[in-house]
Amino acid sequence: MTLIECIPNFSEGRRLDVVDKLAAAAASVDGVTVLDQQSDGTHNRCVITFVGDEVAIAEAAFRSIRAASELIDLNSHQGAHPRFGAADVVPFVPLRAEEMPLCVGVARGLAKRVAAELGVPAFLYEDAALVPEHRDLAVIRKGGFEELRDVIATDPARRPDEGAARVHPTAGVVAIGARSPLIAFNVNLDSDDLELAQRIAREIRERDGGMPCVKAIGLLLEDGAVQVSMNLTDYRTTSMADVVAAVGERAAKSGVTIRESEVIGLLPEDALVQIAKEALVATGFRREQVLEARVLDTLLP
Amino acid sequence: MTLIECIPNFSEGRRLDVVDKLAAAAASVDGVTVLDQQSDGTHNRCVITFVGDEVAIAEAAFRSIRAASELIDLNSHQGAHPRFGAADVVPFVPLRAEEMPLCVGVARGLAKRVAAELGVPAFLYEDAALVPEHRDLAVIRKGGFEELRDVIATDPARRPDEGAARVHPTAGVVAIGARSPLIAFNVNLDSDDLELAQRIAREIRERDGGMPCVKAIGLLLEDGAVQVSMNLTDYRTTSMADVVAAVGERAAKSGVTIRESEVIGLLPEDALVQIAKEALVATGFRREQVLEARVLDTLLP
Repeated sequence: MTLIECIPNFSEGRRLDVVDKLAAAAASVDGVTVLDQQSDGTHNRCVITFVGDEVAIAEAAFRSIRAASELIDLNSHQGAHPRFGAADVVPFVPLRAEEMPLCVGVARGLAKRVAAELGVPAFLYEDAALVPEHRDLAVIRKGGFEELRDVIATDPARRPDEGAARVHPTAGVVAIGARSPLIAFNVNLDSDDLELAQRIAREIRERDGGMPCVKAIGLLLEDGAVQVSMNLTDYRTTSMADVVAAVGERAAKSGVTIRESEVIGLLPEDALVQIAKEALVATGFRREQVLEARVLDTLLP
Repeated sequence: MTLIECIPNFSEGRRLDVVDKLAAAAASVDGVTVLDQQSDGTHNRCVITFVGDEVAIAEAAFRSIRAASELIDLNSHQGAHPRFGAADVVPFVPLRAEEMPLCVGVARGLAKRVAAELGVPAFLYEDAALVPEHRDLAVIRKGGFEELRDVIATDPARRPDEGAARVHPTAGVVAIGARSPLIAFNVNLDSDDLELAQRIAREIRERDGGMPCVKAIGLLLEDGAVQVSMNLTDYRTTSMADVVAAVGERAAKSGVTIRESEVIGLLPEDALVQIAKEALVATGFRREQVLEARVLDTLLP
């Protein structure tokens, strides 16, 4: 069984009937399951989560991008979030690490098809990037639709990977990528010491020389306790258990204990299997030993 | 989604065509997935594992019991394992603890139906037991088919819960039950000290005043290392992490470390979720946050 997740971000978070149509376009493909859709009016942006095998997921992503290019006009789009496409960012995420090459293939094939059939130029980012300069989404999206529209034809550094060097007049461009699952994970401390949480966040995050694939900030919660709020961009490199241990150790030096941790949103079963392997010293434990995984495999052959 | 596991044991482990027919009888029900079948010639016994919702699983179990009563004659059955039925033991296992009452209902309904339609009397054991004396399978199966045949009509203590007080002439009786998932779990030590493994097993097992729902023995492995080999009969009472900690502590006192642990066979996803909650101090973490679980829920509505 192959199961790939696609989590496209579209530049529409206010007209909920449009958001429903984008989700319906993806759901119209046999073998695709839409798991979630969330809209944000302030950002005027929505996120739709769906899964399927490598063939179904590519078709579902294509149909949702096509619907977005028909229903969303960036010239009249306002919102707080940077964006350069009606379908703005389309990442494919492997639920098992060994499927990353498949996700890269899906992303690159889709980029070609979107450029050819919809006339929407595509950038390939993160693991699907064709050139290292395009790995970072923030770099390729700099200045958004309005800036890119002006420089795309003249600045070789801003040229898309697939399609002509001009934005689609209403749908802009699209960033299609492949990346590891991102886990949003918070550790709450039995303390009101915001400086402590901020110091721990600095110490453990990659940007400041900490643990690889960890982004972290310190926050004060409404109930007065403090939190180390994290994104783990590759749980196989630095796991949830790793950051719990790292935060716990540093907090303990100040006499503070962990109150609890929170996983925000969804995570792949593979992350649970990894936790079990670590917690039980069960190096040989495999996903196929999970009863529900076996059932899923028989249902998704 | 409700998913119940049924793991019937049949008194046939040599005629593999018969074993295949028993599995096929279960698989013939829509919505039932046969996950495994294993035959043992010495015990002349097989185990078939299948899953489905509460309606499908009851029908699948009935069909496999019917097939066994037609294909197996206990009068000519020989084997090392105690047995009193063609379909000998039929446990229903909830994949989530809250579904135990449903399993009890399925077991009791099936017992009535098997007695009425097949003329095979049924005992209800463990959580499905109607009387406390029938909870323990070893007690109700004492002496096997041959002993029960002689005493069932005259000894009130050996009377079945459903059906007449006489064995079916060829199929005997059947024990139908509901129980928690059993996890077979071993911890291997970096040591060749069999006495140490046996002492740790004694200290942690319930029988000798140790941890509840733990059965344990100490074994010498082929490579010369020793193992604490366990059955956890209710991982919610004593978890894999609990026994790893208990074995690790006791081994450490003798200067011995854990080499690795092994999970034998299948376990429910719920057990992984529990490990994650413990290992990450993530008290609020729920199964529904596992992406594959969400996919399974949409496929098994």
